Amino acid sequence: MSLLEILDHTGVFVFAITGALVAVRKEMDIFGFVVLALMPAVGGGTLRDIMLDVPVFWIVDNTYLFVTLAAAIVTFFAHRLIQRLSELLTWLDALGLSVFCAIGCAKALELGYGPVVAVVMGVITAVAGGIVRDVIANESPLVLHKEVYATAAFAGSVVFVVSPMPDQVSLLAAIITAFVVRGLGITFGLSLPTVKHS
Amino acid sequence: MSLLEILDHTGVFVFAITGALVAVRKEMDIFGFVVLALMPAVGGGTLRDIMLDVPVFWIVDNTYLFVTLAAAIVTFFAHRLIQRLSELLTWLDALGLSVFCAIGCAKALELGYGPVVAVVMGVITAVAGGIVRDVIANESPLVLHKEVYATAAFAGSVVFVVSPMPDQVSLLAAIITAFVVRGLGITFGLSLPTVKHS
Amino acid sequence: MSLLEILDHTGVFVFAITGALVAVRKEMDIFGFVVLALMPAVGGGTLRDIMLDVPVFWIVDNTYLFVTLAAAIVTFFAHRLIQRLSELLTWLDALGLSVFCAIGCAKALELGYGPVVAVVMGVITAVAGGIVRDVIANESPLVLHKEVYATAAFAGSVVFVVSPMPDQVSLLAAIITAFVVRGLGITFGLSLPTVKHS
Repeated sequence: MSLLEILDHTGVFVFAITGALVAVRKEMDIFGFVVLALMPAVGGGTLRDIMLDVPVFWIVDNTYLFVTLAAAIVTFFAHRLIQRLSELLTWLDALGLSVFCAIGCAKALELGYGPVVAVVMGVITAVAGGIVRDVIANESPLVLHKEVYATAAFAGSVVFVVSPMPDQVSLLAAIITAFVVRGLGITFGLSLPTVKHS
Repeated sequence: MSLLEILDHTGVFVFAITGALVAVRKEMDIFGFVVLALMPAVGGGTLRDIMLDVPVFWIVDNTYLFVTLAAAIVTFFAHRLIQRLSELLTWLDALGLSVFCAIGCAKALELGYGPVVAVVMGVITAVAGGIVRDVIANESPLVLHKEVYATAAFAGSVVFVVSPMPDQVSLLAAIITAFVVRGLGITFGLSLPTVKHS
Repeated sequence: MSLLEILDHTGVFVFAITGALVAVRKEMDIFGFVVLALMPAVGGGTLRDIMLDVPVFWIVDNTYLFVTLAAAIVTFFAHRLIQRLSELLTWLDALGLSVFCAIGCAKALELGYGPVVAVVMGVITAVAGGIVRDVIANESPLVLHKEVYATAAFAGSVVFVVSPMPDQVSLLAAIITAFVVRGLGITFGLSLPTVKHS
């Protein structure tokens, strides 16, 4: 297993926990936990693969499903403990975000798509599943309101696309960029300006 | 028309009515009825076919659309009558659920996918459309809260996958299993445990 | 650039503005504007292309993304001005609706699908994205309640499908039909009957 694969599965695990934590708040049963865990964990990549018309990644490699299932079950039984780790989770989530955008971007480029589509796919891989999670939970998606979150995925994706370095180095550069941007957002509580509706 | 096809179309008709009944509650117009009827009736199977990258079933066979349309129109004009049949509907819905999970599972296996993907597709075929119905109607999906519903689809799908019997027999065994599990849930008001958020 | 392409891009721009205006009401950040603008602008066509299993139109031609992005940015900075143009927007939206249903319908027929699928795709192209926009914004989709909106897309699609005239003429007839139906709805405040839930 390469470092990238380890990071990828860690990202899936942490994203799945963010979904399961919403299920805690909504007082769902174990099936609700699994569904809400699946959305952020594999939802964005699923949408990406369907749009790029390639086999859906978790259908090819079922490990992603088992990782998600594990996260849902762990959260179901240990949600009080997990909620106390919220700061750690925020940073692991930032890591997942960074890895996901780089992977989505790389996949699109490898398939021969142009830089614009690659950046869009990077952002979709990283944030679309979280939006679906919030929509299913009947909440207005947080990422659309005010946080440096999608911006981080966008920055990472752009770095990957414009990077003239070999793929492995570009991937690392993209992950670090996204992580730093997101990390600055977390540390300083930065947020994008919103409109005031009057 | 085989028995399976009759059960399949009955399932589509009943699932469509469950969608249209949400449209009654939301005081929608006839178009709203059709859209909300389509979600549970063909939504899960559509998602399954898109993920498995095969032609969408109702594009191949338009009958499913007409059955759904009929259910929407009948419910629009006779919703008071239909609402009085709620117990019958619950049991027909259980039948639809059972048939859908078996069909979804069988389709995935026939296409050469493994048992894990087949079970996932069985559950998606049976419950995904109902989730989308509730999300569009701006309600938190009932199936994620507490009911032995997805569990029944899961049980039926597992039985189909592990069954060593010929396909027709496995299909029947899966349908009966799902129906019995769901039926026990209905009869005894069983529900999965949920977390208590504190 | 043909007249149809100009109308198509105008439709995308106006539909994107309707999405961005929901983002104004929800006090979202610029990313929220872009996401909500994308839904009505390219969402319906994306769903259509995925269901018909052809390359997604905006992946083939990125112009649609830039038009949407422009609409989102313009609305972010000039939403007060745009909101004062609401009547103009309503009519441009009617034009977009008319063009989208004709294009969706034409695409399905060209690919060899039958009239029923073509009409469904015409309606999906025109209205599905708007439904997703409302769902993401956590609102019950307006189009499902009471307005002559989907009906206009339906009427335009049916005219296209039954028209015995050459494609260009049929396209024009479909656009005009949808626009007139929608226009009558706007002018006279027509709406489809809804059920009364009691």
